[in-house]
Amino acid sequence: MNEAAATPFVTHLRRRREGRLSPAAVAALTGDLAACFGDKLVTSQAVRVQHGHTLTWIANAPPDAVIFAASTQDVVDVVRICAEHDAPIIPFGAGTSLEGHVNALHGGVSIDMSRMDRILAVHAEDLDCVVEAGLHRKALNEQLRDTGLFFPIDPGADASIGGMAATRASGTNAVRYGTMKDNVISLVVVTADGSIVRTASRAKKSSAGYDLTRLFVGSEGTLGIIAEVTLRLHGVPEAISAGHCPFKDVRSACDATFATIQSGLPVARIELLDALQVKACNNYSKLSLPEAPMLFLEFHGTSAGVAEQSQRFGEIAAEFGGGPFAWATRPEERTRLWQARHDVYWASMTLRPGARPFATDVCVPISRLADCVEETQRDVAQAGLVAPIVGHVGDGNFHVSPLVDMEDPADIERAEAFSSRLVRRALAMDGTCTGEHGVGQKKIHYVEEEYSAATLDLMRRVKQVFDPDNLLNPGKILRL
Amino acid sequence: MNEAAATPFVTHLRRRREGRLSPAAVAALTGDLAACFGDKLVTSQAVRVQHGHTLTWIANAPPDAVIFAASTQDVVDVVRICAEHDAPIIPFGAGTSLEGHVNALHGGVSIDMSRMDRILAVHAEDLDCVVEAGLHRKALNEQLRDTGLFFPIDPGADASIGGMAATRASGTNAVRYGTMKDNVISLVVVTADGSIVRTASRAKKSSAGYDLTRLFVGSEGTLGIIAEVTLRLHGVPEAISAGHCPFKDVRSACDATFATIQSGLPVARIELLDALQVKACNNYSKLSLPEAPMLFLEFHGTSAGVAEQSQRFGEIAAEFGGGPFAWATRPEERTRLWQARHDVYWASMTLRPGARPFATDVCVPISRLADCVEETQRDVAQAGLVAPIVGHVGDGNFHVSPLVDMEDPADIERAEAFSSRLVRRALAMDGTCTGEHGVGQKKIHYVEEEYSAATLDLMRRVKQVFDPDNLLNPGKILRL
Repeated sequence: MNEAAATPFVTHLRRRREGRLSPAAVAALTGDLAACFGDKLVTSQAVRVQHGHTLTWIANAPPDAVIFAASTQDVVDVVRICAEHDAPIIPFGAGTSLEGHVNALHGGVSIDMSRMDRILAVHAEDLDCVVEAGLHRKALNEQLRDTGLFFPIDPGADASIGGMAATRASGTNAVRYGTMKDNVISLVVVTADGSIVRTASRAKKSSAGYDLTRLFVGSEGTLGIIAEVTLRLHGVPEAISAGHCPFKDVRSACDATFATIQSGLPVARIELLDALQVKACNNYSKLSLPEAPMLFLEFHGTSAGVAEQSQRFGEIAAEFGGGPFAWATRPEERTRLWQARHDVYWASMTLRPGARPFATDVCVPISRLADCVEETQRDVAQAGLVAPIVGHVGDGNFHVSPLVDMEDPADIERAEAFSSRLVRRALAMDGTCTGEHGVGQKKIHYVEEEYSAATLDLMRRVKQVFDPDNLLNPGKILRL
Repeated sequence: MNEAAATPFVTHLRRRREGRLSPAAVAALTGDLAACFGDKLVTSQAVRVQHGHTLTWIANAPPDAVIFAASTQDVVDVVRICAEHDAPIIPFGAGTSLEGHVNALHGGVSIDMSRMDRILAVHAEDLDCVVEAGLHRKALNEQLRDTGLFFPIDPGADASIGGMAATRASGTNAVRYGTMKDNVISLVVVTADGSIVRTASRAKKSSAGYDLTRLFVGSEGTLGIIAEVTLRLHGVPEAISAGHCPFKDVRSACDATFATIQSGLPVARIELLDALQVKACNNYSKLSLPEAPMLFLEFHGTSAGVAEQSQRFGEIAAEFGGGPFAWATRPEERTRLWQARHDVYWASMTLRPGARPFATDVCVPISRLADCVEETQRDVAQAGLVAPIVGHVGDGNFHVSPLVDMEDPADIERAEAFSSRLVRRALAMDGTCTGEHGVGQKKIHYVEEEYSAATLDLMRRVKQVFDPDNLLNPGKILRL
């Protein structure tokens, strides 16, 4: 019997948090942080607000202090000091979350991971690499360029790898390469008691015990702080072709999408834009696409394979009345197309100047996708919203983004009500309230609708034993 | 604040089990089971021994009773009755485990899932299906035949889907299609308190909360009893080609394997057999392969794609001195090849009549595979073992199977010592003690070597809160 087993194991009662730390508690906390961290500690109002800042309609809740961690040991020290002061700890990657993940609802310390941005190892033969959590995905791919390998997960924003793991991110390439769940091999995590935990070996597969890797992936900083990530890499395809294809309506585009998936075509990207979104992209990205529902596609493979795939897609599209199917053969054209896709957030703002997109993120079984999108379009029309739609339709995941005047409570309320209807529509189709953005702060009640009480109870038990004092990103994912 | 959150949540102390139930306790337990289950309860010695039976060197430990469950409600009722009697519960699928998973170390009730063998739904458009846990994988694929879809995970044995999920099984197709971790979309699980928990929606991806699906996959019946599984399906490839290719030594075969993987060739199967294993297959399966280290391969795709892939593999093999590369073009030849591969367990017995294989299952980063296999071959020679090797080498996973006289304790001890050295070799290369068989009963101390104390502590915490009374398959995966 080993030592750990001999220790009685008693967990605390569930610990909810109310309000923020008192000024005295903040002073004591920052005093200890300053002694340990020197100028890695920043408490200026501007930096604190920036670390609570989120690209959402959710009110900013700044942390009491920000630590710019430079090492896993720094993360351990923050956890240790915060535990002593009963202060919340909120990991901060690139701040590109759309669900208020980094907002410090109950104050505490934001751990900014941006200085932990090194690639620690590239194992080209094993198609993997080990990186610090603060590294951004674009920087990773730039540094991988000479290896012939790349990291495919692409949520649009230049997110940090740790943040992407924490939110189980995916994006345009997921239909072929999977999500973060499929591309994280192992993690180094700092837990609430300040332990450093490595979740798995570098073996490609294992049946040795509980899958802690996947338990931390998507846990949004509530079970531990991801410090290092071992990622699966992929060979840069020999050939890439991309193109766009208009359809007479959204249903035809969806039908063509799932015929494509079912036929086994290994499409790398298949993205839907509705006519309104195409219009916004034309405005913002200076394109001249026909303002109709549209699929953007990309194929990866050998030259022959890509040619075969694109020809077959063209045939499938034609069966559903789609076309013409225009191919961007030059890399610059391809880049322009995908840049436009990635800029939809900004492009959508041209549709209602002064307003900002209210992000939504449902995902349904792809057989229900056309129904879900069409019903949603009727809802948008009925509610009088300006709300373009984009979707990772190969996965059944789409985003409707009502343009909202963030200064107008009635406008926000209208968007929230629409978002509720959208989520319920997706749940009724056996879908999920979030395909890739995560739960964060304001989707907690949708999670409670998505899962049964018994399922939620298991999730709460996990939270309970990983973080008995509710120090780790409190107020996110679950109501305790 | 919802109701669940209002309930104080206190977990018990960690609960180890010693010995078996007393005769009086067994009598009381079986009395209650008989009243509830009638002839679904079987307590005959033969059936009990068969349910403890495992294809291993581990001593048989029969349960006190077997319930042939016909529904999820039956499973709930077993759990309820066992909890009242503090009796262990051991789920039983097909009994093909190689690590003593179904052995009833502390007695209790084996839940035989074989009557829960229905396909509940096939969603062809969504490429998924919902099945009861007791369905065997071959029966699933037979019933899917008319849909043009198939379930690719193939561990060799005709295992049950629930057992495959519980052990995170994989096998020959994993290099292309992933493991059970990648092909389970959602589970229905009966937990230790008798709740029925559905872990996820049918959406292809989700970021809504903790990944309970992946937490139950690979948990070997220690966290809950899997009752239903939603599986990802794949389109039957238009064309399949298979072949075999001899090499001058194991290193060349390994080098050709990782050159193939790195080149991005989407090989569906790439299996290593060492010369001794080839000899055994020739004996048993009446083949006439050259008795040299050998790769068996399979490619899936379009006719053109498969032809391109096979040609490229032939070129890669030649670079490493391999060949000739012989293709089985007719389906019968292909079937014969893979049947021989699947029969290696039986074939190996021809090498030492009366002896049985002692299963091992390490997995290392593929860059270390040749080193690991070569060092192991030297070890085999030095130890004077007869031990053929097969490997899912595209994943870095291989099995060495010393032929052991299971009646001879000294012979078993020699194999155990060899197995320990093999595991330590793999761990030193950042590999895992089990790539796909699972931990079961006798690999617990290897799991303790593979993970740090802090990591093991997290796993124990999970076990603790999911099963505070240690009712679920006690004595497996972790020492409490």
